[in-house]
Amino acid sequence: MAIPLPDGLATPVLVVDPDVLDRNISRMAEASRTRGFALRPHAKAHKCVQIADRQLQAGARGLSVATLGEAEAFARAGVDDLFIAYPVWPDADKAQRLRRLADDVALRVGVESVEGAQQLGKAVQGSARPVEVLVEVDSGSRRTGVQPLHAGEVGKAAADAGLNVGGVFTFPGHGYGHDAQARERAARDEERTLGEASQVLRDLGLDVRVVSGGSTPTVGQWQPGAVNELRPGVYVFNDATQLAIGTCGVEDLALCAVATVISVPAADRFVLDLGSKTLGSDRSSWVTGHGYLPQFPQGTVTSLWEHHAVVRLPEGVQGPRLGALVAVVPNHICTPVNLADELVVVRDREVIDRWQVTARGANT
Amino acid sequence: MAIPLPDGLATPVLVVDPDVLDRNISRMAEASRTRGFALRPHAKAHKCVQIADRQLQAGARGLSVATLGEAEAFARAGVDDLFIAYPVWPDADKAQRLRRLADDVALRVGVESVEGAQQLGKAVQGSARPVEVLVEVDSGSRRTGVQPLHAGEVGKAAADAGLNVGGVFTFPGHGYGHDAQARERAARDEERTLGEASQVLRDLGLDVRVVSGGSTPTVGQWQPGAVNELRPGVYVFNDATQLAIGTCGVEDLALCAVATVISVPAADRFVLDLGSKTLGSDRSSWVTGHGYLPQFPQGTVTSLWEHHAVVRLPEGVQGPRLGALVAVVPNHICTPVNLADELVVVRDREVIDRWQVTARGANT
Repeated sequence: MAIPLPDGLATPVLVVDPDVLDRNISRMAEASRTRGFALRPHAKAHKCVQIADRQLQAGARGLSVATLGEAEAFARAGVDDLFIAYPVWPDADKAQRLRRLADDVALRVGVESVEGAQQLGKAVQGSARPVEVLVEVDSGSRRTGVQPLHAGEVGKAAADAGLNVGGVFTFPGHGYGHDAQARERAARDEERTLGEASQVLRDLGLDVRVVSGGSTPTVGQWQPGAVNELRPGVYVFNDATQLAIGTCGVEDLALCAVATVISVPAADRFVLDLGSKTLGSDRSSWVTGHGYLPQFPQGTVTSLWEHHAVVRLPEGVQGPRLGALVAVVPNHICTPVNLADELVVVRDREVIDRWQVTARGANT
Repeated sequence: MAIPLPDGLATPVLVVDPDVLDRNISRMAEASRTRGFALRPHAKAHKCVQIADRQLQAGARGLSVATLGEAEAFARAGVDDLFIAYPVWPDADKAQRLRRLADDVALRVGVESVEGAQQLGKAVQGSARPVEVLVEVDSGSRRTGVQPLHAGEVGKAAADAGLNVGGVFTFPGHGYGHDAQARERAARDEERTLGEASQVLRDLGLDVRVVSGGSTPTVGQWQPGAVNELRPGVYVFNDATQLAIGTCGVEDLALCAVATVISVPAADRFVLDLGSKTLGSDRSSWVTGHGYLPQFPQGTVTSLWEHHAVVRLPEGVQGPRLGALVAVVPNHICTPVNLADELVVVRDREVIDRWQVTARGANT
């Protein structure tokens, strides 16, 4: 964490510590290599080509993204191997865009319904490069994804539609629990459901080259074998939620929002010029407050408005003065990054770079 | 609400019904005029110059904004009377920007501390037009604002720093409760605290031309006399929270997010390509779900991810097919507008205009 902070930052602003960032990136790359997993980090957590480049240089074989818009933004920035880990519904507009993208990059897309696979096949028919699809499996998140036994129908529809079926993927959203057991259980759910779905596809004679799962919380829980590709995202920065569930330490936090103290209404309370329009308002039920304050680890952001964060301090803790800069590590990093136009890179109290958020708002 | 929706929208996208919008704007303008209040609508709810122009044409005397960045964006777009209803802390960067702005427009700024007033005075010293300040009073939100009896110290410091003290303002954040009594109490709190603070300023010989309060929930609760300026914001669009607390009806909803059905995992459930990165994740504890669905009023958005909204339907209600367009009215309109680059204007199933969000992301 780049603290102490430089003077003169126009607040609120997102600040990155490039050394912690680089360490997080190489550590994940190294762990994946050692344990035999391919790494395809999820770029929705940073949306930034400078960070994507670091991940690719460290050995990632491509990026995962959440939307067609993110894929387009990274393709324009020169990334040529992209997995839209999402069951895109190719209506007229998206069909055209998918086709264009498939001409330019090695494109992989998620599918989870027979109709979706058929539409996708039509959309990218005749593209310069074949489009690979992975069948999405529900491992317990209960959002999108088929139950493993239905993977075959979707895989077959995709193959019949001329798509290159490459395997299966899942997102273990239920692994974001407070206890390590939730993460361990989610990782076992991933292995089991992906394994079952893979078998169903193989029984139909379909190829299963890629078995893809993982998120920052479950990634450390995996046994090599059942799964061969990881898609963690948040690990580049980490956040207050990862800190609370214990998947990172304070020294692994690479991004914070920096704000100015605009009001000190009482000795135990101060207010920052920072709100949900910068920090996001995501908050798991078991997380205390709206972020972690490295300078005031005992402080709690008790309420968050659009442009105000009210911080309470325990008795006896000295608060900051009016006009001081205070860092807040967001609860969930993916939201503030999407709200920012740029990330300010700080080393030794100096602004050394400013990175545009390449795929800011590219959510369609 | 512009439903039925046009075909071929690239989703997720924010759609505005211009007729409902215009009706909401004229109704508020008319009510303010009749009851003798000046209207200075809060532009943070729309951030859009096309909507600001409509408000000004309907009789608003200027705009309220939340940040210096919003003020700059609207000034560039030609609005020349702006109130930054926020205790801006003028550090080096903001001091310069405030001074530039004060040269260009009639500028009013909030102050709530002696030091803040002194800094602001230094920042705008010698500007082409005098800068007016209003002292912020805490009427019960417990974020920024002084207690009424301390308004004098701040007002005096502002006057001593060469600023033009014009009166007092407050934001009744505690009026966003579920019951009408909360709104009524909040309105009475506004009147009482603003009245006390005004008296304190007058006793010091300071001018109190402006007594400013109000938000969409409390605006209808006011008696003329105690307060002479209103700053509601959300009323232009309304949202699922206003619907839930009863300050608007379904026919007054002027904006929705439109999404595509990407998954139908069961008869009672469907998933939309819409998440917190488009809709925002604000949700009061007493609001059911993440938005209101005009086509499925009995449906509930039970979980919201970054790019997925899971909707549950009661037994027997027919859900939409894969690929269908579904509208979701956000819980809190201010967040999605800030996330969007444009608002798509729809009348009679046709896209008739696209409005850039003028002050998108202008949160510094």
